[in-house]
Amino acid sequence: VIAYFNGRFLGESDVRVSPWDRGFQFADGVYEVVRAYRGRFFRMNSHMRRLRHSLDELRIGYDDVEALPGVAERLLRENGLTEADGKFYVQVTRGVAPRSHRFPPATTSPTVFASVAPISSATESHTAKVILTEDTRWARRDIKSLMLLPNVLASQAAADAGADEALFVRQGMITEGSHTGFAAVRDGVFRTHPSGSEVLPSITREVTLELCEELGVPVREEAVAVEELSDCQELMILGTTAEVSAVVAIDGRPIAGPGPITSALQAGFSALVARELGW
Amino acid sequence: VIAYFNGRFLGESDVRVSPWDRGFQFADGVYEVVRAYRGRFFRMNSHMRRLRHSLDELRIGYDDVEALPGVAERLLRENGLTEADGKFYVQVTRGVAPRSHRFPPATTSPTVFASVAPISSATESHTAKVILTEDTRWARRDIKSLMLLPNVLASQAAADAGADEALFVRQGMITEGSHTGFAAVRDGVFRTHPSGSEVLPSITREVTLELCEELGVPVREEAVAVEELSDCQELMILGTTAEVSAVVAIDGRPIAGPGPITSALQAGFSALVARELGW
Repeated sequence: VIAYFNGRFLGESDVRVSPWDRGFQFADGVYEVVRAYRGRFFRMNSHMRRLRHSLDELRIGYDDVEALPGVAERLLRENGLTEADGKFYVQVTRGVAPRSHRFPPATTSPTVFASVAPISSATESHTAKVILTEDTRWARRDIKSLMLLPNVLASQAAADAGADEALFVRQGMITEGSHTGFAAVRDGVFRTHPSGSEVLPSITREVTLELCEELGVPVREEAVAVEELSDCQELMILGTTAEVSAVVAIDGRPIAGPGPITSALQAGFSALVARELGW
Repeated sequence: VIAYFNGRFLGESDVRVSPWDRGFQFADGVYEVVRAYRGRFFRMNSHMRRLRHSLDELRIGYDDVEALPGVAERLLRENGLTEADGKFYVQVTRGVAPRSHRFPPATTSPTVFASVAPISSATESHTAKVILTEDTRWARRDIKSLMLLPNVLASQAAADAGADEALFVRQGMITEGSHTGFAAVRDGVFRTHPSGSEVLPSITREVTLELCEELGVPVREEAVAVEELSDCQELMILGTTAEVSAVVAIDGRPIAGPGPITSALQAGFSALVARELGW
């Protein structure tokens, strides 16, 4: 497997991260995951815009974001994935420096690691069993940072419960999943958490909002309360790899799904991908 | 510089962390910093107990904690620091695995990195200028995890303001510093945040509580409110490297210090270290 590391393309096993990398010691970095369909990246620009937001908010001085789409393309080629469904992972940290909480000197180069991997579409049922779990994350969830330990713990709690995803609950309201966004349909209205520091600006959510407009589904950007769940007719998780997936169980209780709006969004999503990628 | 990495002692520049290490991608790991005085470690057992707590809470299956004090001693020897003031840094992550939020298979070996470095005692004035900043951290602050990005941002905010440390404020109450504990004296009573998930179980705090008992200083484990600060006669930060340091400015406003109880704790701390380490 060929990866990208600090400007070079090299065998993945030759990538050497320093133990003094601030990504390793301080979670001081950001990342993105971009989906490729048959070798073409979907909404790469949106992901790069979000990456720039994350870098800017953390004052990580990496100014080569515009080169990353080219890196992603080359990684597909180097790894024989130009026709494959896959994903591009890229991570940028504040670099290597003697251990100190404060930022290292401005001359410190950020560390950039990127790789691609195939996704087996056959394994994706587009349904998900979920659990609810307390949202223990830090305050800046709009930054796609390496602060993922609570996401790890939540995701494992889901696995322990035989579920696929954990939905975070903060003060009685569902924010989002451990690695997906969340939306519901209540009385014909598409509901999802408003943007802001409490949730990641999900690109799949953006796409579903566009699709709702196209389909004439009314939207309300207002968080769904746990108490309201039984009044919702459809629940779904949204993500770069999950795409639009119907929630079919919550804390072990089955839910009928996918419902009509979820199904319409799933079909619309596929059509939109095909349209944008030109086939 | 000789470091320790996954069972081997080797040149620090030969340490190769994988980009798929969960410490690098997910902040999925824990750490400790232990102080050495003239080549002898202070309260090593307390640090190892806390490390075990951190590992247990995260279900990281590393069962060689009892070997780490020996690793620390050998690192001092290998680096010619057996007579030096220094510190031992050790970090344990959940190991290397293909990227997935949930835990990797139980057969995955944790990654262990450790190193030692000298501390120049001459640079420590035992005074600190501090700023107040919002506590944006995740909920499990009792775990000494790699979830340090908010600590990094707070520490840098302090540096930007010409200060040495940032104190976190949560709902009007001071929790602790970005890399230190916090205590105050109000009307002769030593005040510090109670233990629990909101603060790290600080070992220096433990020591100061012992010293308060020795000195006959009454203690109240109750958080200090920001509004109360002007009613406090002494403020201090506590830490493995800061030891007991007097706060001499807060948000740019000078404070007289160190006061009598701070000074007594500083003297008591030095005496206790000398007593415990046997000189």
